[in-house]
Amino acid sequence: MRYVCGHKIPDSDSIVGAVALAYLFNQIGIKSQAVRTGEINDESRFILDKFCLDEPIFKDSFKDQDIYLVDFNNYQEGADDLVDANIVGITDHHKMGGIKTSKPLDVWIRAVGCSNTIIKEMFDFYDIKIPKNIAAAMCCAILSDTVIFKSPTCTKIDTTTCKELAKIANIKEYKKLGLEMFNVKSNIKGVAIDQLIKRDFKSFDMHGKKVGIGQLEVVDITLFDDIKEQLKDGLRQVKEDEGFDTCLLLLTDIIAMGSLILVASDSIDVVQRSWDIKVVDSEFWLDRCLSRKKQIVPYIEQNFKQ
Amino acid sequence: MRYVCGHKIPDSDSIVGAVALAYLFNQIGIKSQAVRTGEINDESRFILDKFCLDEPIFKDSFKDQDIYLVDFNNYQEGADDLVDANIVGITDHHKMGGIKTSKPLDVWIRAVGCSNTIIKEMFDFYDIKIPKNIAAAMCCAILSDTVIFKSPTCTKIDTTTCKELAKIANIKEYKKLGLEMFNVKSNIKGVAIDQLIKRDFKSFDMHGKKVGIGQLEVVDITLFDDIKEQLKDGLRQVKEDEGFDTCLLLLTDIIAMGSLILVASDSIDVVQRSWDIKVVDSEFWLDRCLSRKKQIVPYIEQNFKQ
Repeated sequence: MRYVCGHKIPDSDSIVGAVALAYLFNQIGIKSQAVRTGEINDESRFILDKFCLDEPIFKDSFKDQDIYLVDFNNYQEGADDLVDANIVGITDHHKMGGIKTSKPLDVWIRAVGCSNTIIKEMFDFYDIKIPKNIAAAMCCAILSDTVIFKSPTCTKIDTTTCKELAKIANIKEYKKLGLEMFNVKSNIKGVAIDQLIKRDFKSFDMHGKKVGIGQLEVVDITLFDDIKEQLKDGLRQVKEDEGFDTCLLLLTDIIAMGSLILVASDSIDVVQRSWDIKVVDSEFWLDRCLSRKKQIVPYIEQNFKQ
Repeated sequence: MRYVCGHKIPDSDSIVGAVALAYLFNQIGIKSQAVRTGEINDESRFILDKFCLDEPIFKDSFKDQDIYLVDFNNYQEGADDLVDANIVGITDHHKMGGIKTSKPLDVWIRAVGCSNTIIKEMFDFYDIKIPKNIAAAMCCAILSDTVIFKSPTCTKIDTTTCKELAKIANIKEYKKLGLEMFNVKSNIKGVAIDQLIKRDFKSFDMHGKKVGIGQLEVVDITLFDDIKEQLKDGLRQVKEDEGFDTCLLLLTDIIAMGSLILVASDSIDVVQRSWDIKVVDSEFWLDRCLSRKKQIVPYIEQNFKQ
């Protein structure tokens, strides 16, 4: 059995990617199962429910088993025993994370905005027809990862692919679908502060310093007005409890197109130097910043190097 | 400028791959140059000469420059400053070697017999016509890496692709071309012992032990009768001089389909356990063994682990 799995705190690209790839592999004769190593989020559940797709089952141990990675390619973001698993392939759109294997495998990594864009390329390569509901979910994954084409990570290939998938799924107003999805994603009512911080949180080793960066994307940033101070306290707590040097939480407004960034850090000067800004009251605003991958990680990583 | 480069001791897959990919990238608007980090071998020169292609220029430093890797994906087999280069993409058919990048890139890795098989896939993906002489050279690279389809690394995709390339190049008797090429490769007359050992030599870190494995493929193994003892002495010398735990030299007979393996090792028991054989007089025979990658490396690596 080949298990297809995304990263530990799965987003919709990971979840839908696992479902779509497991379907593709089964079609070409490789017995496969979509799985997940973390809790499914509201947005992903909305997508699966809307298009009648099964949730990937939970699985967090892969020792000596065949695993195909989707939407990540490093050991840190996977199950704790990933290093002892048999990695048989990778589909991803992130930088290379240092994985070593003992055998040759298939790796589809592209500098595009979403793994599902590459999965569409794979369906075409293997000449397999995409079922309507899977095409719809893949379309949503691209809208999510590219922030409805607004993110600087979005390429022309992503927009073209998303439109092709919308056509297969017979979705006419895909931008409206995208906004509907982001409204679900924006839901923060009744969610615990800690859960909000960890909803989409990634940990990085930056030249010896442990850096954690979370992101919450909403259609209106004023949603956070009442809980901003609690989020700052929570972020400081995460930093202390888990031994981070620096924790950032991006509150991204996809309509205003920018991010308010909350900071808890032992290296405030590094943070300030990274974007030539001043951190006041543990926060700063970055205009036009929508992407953690392109607009946050490379800058702070470089400044930790110096 | 994007430099397209194969591994440090380049074989025909590396050399032809660099030429073909540089052509492809230039066609899609990325200014590119085929380069090499080591001496070109007789077989590769034969291919380039026969089909009127320019030799990649020598270049062994890439600090802060854009490099696209072909036929390898680790730091050990590349230029000494590869770790400081900007790796922009990879086309390869080997196991993953632990490369880390700071930005997303394009990675085309497939579990097939030859990188040029994947390069054909890339030409098709970008919808670029392959010039006849490049197609001919790519056809030769596949024949070389798959030992004219006899190697266990050869997949159906390699044979199909090779035939398609032969058709584009208007080569009717591609197997005859393969044998002609292997006759060139078999040329050992007047070549220094040290050069023969290093002609196609790869170094591996196997659970802390340094292991070097060379391979010479010939159409008739009796060619080595007169120099076998000199090769054993030379292999011992390389082992001592370069701090290897184990050095193997595969003398592969592509017609008889097997390899005589010369051994210089501090871990003879590991070597013997790996294939359940006895090393007598610093050598042993492995029937049907044509592939270092599939039939040598995984076995000895696993036994060094225990």
